[in-house]
Amino acid sequence: MALILALDFGGTKHTAGVAAGGERIWRALQRSPSPPGLQASEDLAGMIDLAHTVLDGRRPTAIGVSFGGPVDHAAGVVRVSYHVPGWEQFPLAQRLEAEFGVPARVDNDGNAAALGEQRFGAGVGRESLLYVTVSTGVGGGWVLGGQIWRGTNGIAGEFGHMTLDPNGPQCQCGRRGCVERLASGPWLAQHARDLLAQHPNEGARLRALTQGDVEAVDARRVAEAAGLGDELAWTALSSAARALGTAIGNVVNLMDPGRVVLGGGVSHSGPRYWAAVRAAADAVALPDARFEIVPAALGDEAPLWGAVALAPA
Amino acid sequence: MALILALDFGGTKHTAGVAAGGERIWRALQRSPSPPGLQASEDLAGMIDLAHTVLDGRRPTAIGVSFGGPVDHAAGVVRVSYHVPGWEQFPLAQRLEAEFGVPARVDNDGNAAALGEQRFGAGVGRESLLYVTVSTGVGGGWVLGGQIWRGTNGIAGEFGHMTLDPNGPQCQCGRRGCVERLASGPWLAQHARDLLAQHPNEGARLRALTQGDVEAVDARRVAEAAGLGDELAWTALSSAARALGTAIGNVVNLMDPGRVVLGGGVSHSGPRYWAAVRAAADAVALPDARFEIVPAALGDEAPLWGAVALAPA
Repeated sequence: MALILALDFGGTKHTAGVAAGGERIWRALQRSPSPPGLQASEDLAGMIDLAHTVLDGRRPTAIGVSFGGPVDHAAGVVRVSYHVPGWEQFPLAQRLEAEFGVPARVDNDGNAAALGEQRFGAGVGRESLLYVTVSTGVGGGWVLGGQIWRGTNGIAGEFGHMTLDPNGPQCQCGRRGCVERLASGPWLAQHARDLLAQHPNEGARLRALTQGDVEAVDARRVAEAAGLGDELAWTALSSAARALGTAIGNVVNLMDPGRVVLGGGVSHSGPRYWAAVRAAADAVALPDARFEIVPAALGDEAPLWGAVALAPA
Repeated sequence: MALILALDFGGTKHTAGVAAGGERIWRALQRSPSPPGLQASEDLAGMIDLAHTVLDGRRPTAIGVSFGGPVDHAAGVVRVSYHVPGWEQFPLAQRLEAEFGVPARVDNDGNAAALGEQRFGAGVGRESLLYVTVSTGVGGGWVLGGQIWRGTNGIAGEFGHMTLDPNGPQCQCGRRGCVERLASGPWLAQHARDLLAQHPNEGARLRALTQGDVEAVDARRVAEAAGLGDELAWTALSSAARALGTAIGNVVNLMDPGRVVLGGGVSHSGPRYWAAVRAAADAVALPDARFEIVPAALGDEAPLWGAVALAPA
């Protein structure tokens, strides 16, 4: 029987799971915080400890890994981590194969999450999908014809830095009007804070949620206030939803993925948010387009289930 | 020996060619105008006559077809023609198989041209490319991993109606700021005509090219004047180039095709145009992106060579 060791190197935490071939529940699952200030070697040692804990003496038949940063999938090498120093050109698959004596495959978290949703979540029964996650940033991943589409140089899926408005506000990446700049959690919260500063007599419900502390306004509270009928909060939230939906509509016209799976913290912003995302996508999609935007089903576990699917048979 | 009959149903002309397997020159090639006012049955009869002419008594081993409109590739059925009435749900592959007694495959012209360039033109040696054609409209097609990517519903490749500027001018499709509205030949000519009307003392070279007849200004003359140093013409042409390059940069971030093949009449607008397209794409592409934008190699024959590649072995 296939017994897969699945590892997820996240920005702030590590997760290790064990799943048996064909099953959709974990035989074992553990998380561990990944404290700031580590080097790659310590980061890896912590994950290997966690893996031995979930394995509990069992020997896996294969290993799949989701890594929170760019990866050379074919070589099994991490290109860089934006969180932990020392991962540059690190032969992660090879090191895990040496440690556990079984083959390992590595991919980045966007690709892994897309594959996880396609095999085990909101994309079951579909050959193709675009996976989009909206939280601190906006990321993506492709499954086309049953396989991850990584691109010619392994960098496909950068949905978050599509230019939506060349005259829009400047993104952290240096460009203007990126999806991430218009639709991510921190920026929609910033938009709401700006509106609160400009309109001192509006946004009563949003202000109440933070006891008047404008700096404490985050995307979750904006969504909560919008759900309670706060129109200032809705202005910020709907603007983010429109940007996201416009980008999705563009991608539908270009790639025709059929299904778009939407996850990440901001995707939990309520039915009005979803309706605005869908309306904006419909407005941009061509008349012949057929697609649906559906909620991600696996939450935080999407990359880890993708790691299960990545593990060689 | 494989002998392929290749057919291209264009908007205003038909082309039929005969090619032998593995060869890159036509054994025979003929064009015929497709006069307006025809019905689909007459349109097809004209093409079949042309096919018999190029075959000249030879029997093909297979047939490939490029059609200027949406096609159900798997079924071999034309969905609709925007030029000729009566093509709706027409079983084109089946009719050709009955006529010639050999298997036939049909695809739309954007997909066929992409495949033609990949197998025989500017994409030889590449597994993947985005093909973009800029003329009266802006169209596209995908080859990913050596195969046409048609999408889940067969409508992938609508590069021309990516929204580039949500506050931009209205496109014929009803949306705002589409690539086609900002970068196609008729619209860049319109932009130049508008500038001529607004600035009666500028655009001397462009005016001279049309003997002062502003209505005769077309995209070719705008490019010619820009090449001669006419700054008004360059304003219109560079604006179109920027829009096209921005769209290409977005797609590079999203799909990482490695190579972008650019064809169509407007692509012959000179080195300054190409430099502007590439600069705009570079400005939008992420730092890790690696790609090149290269001229199409097959010109008008790209869909017909794609038809050769489409024909079943």
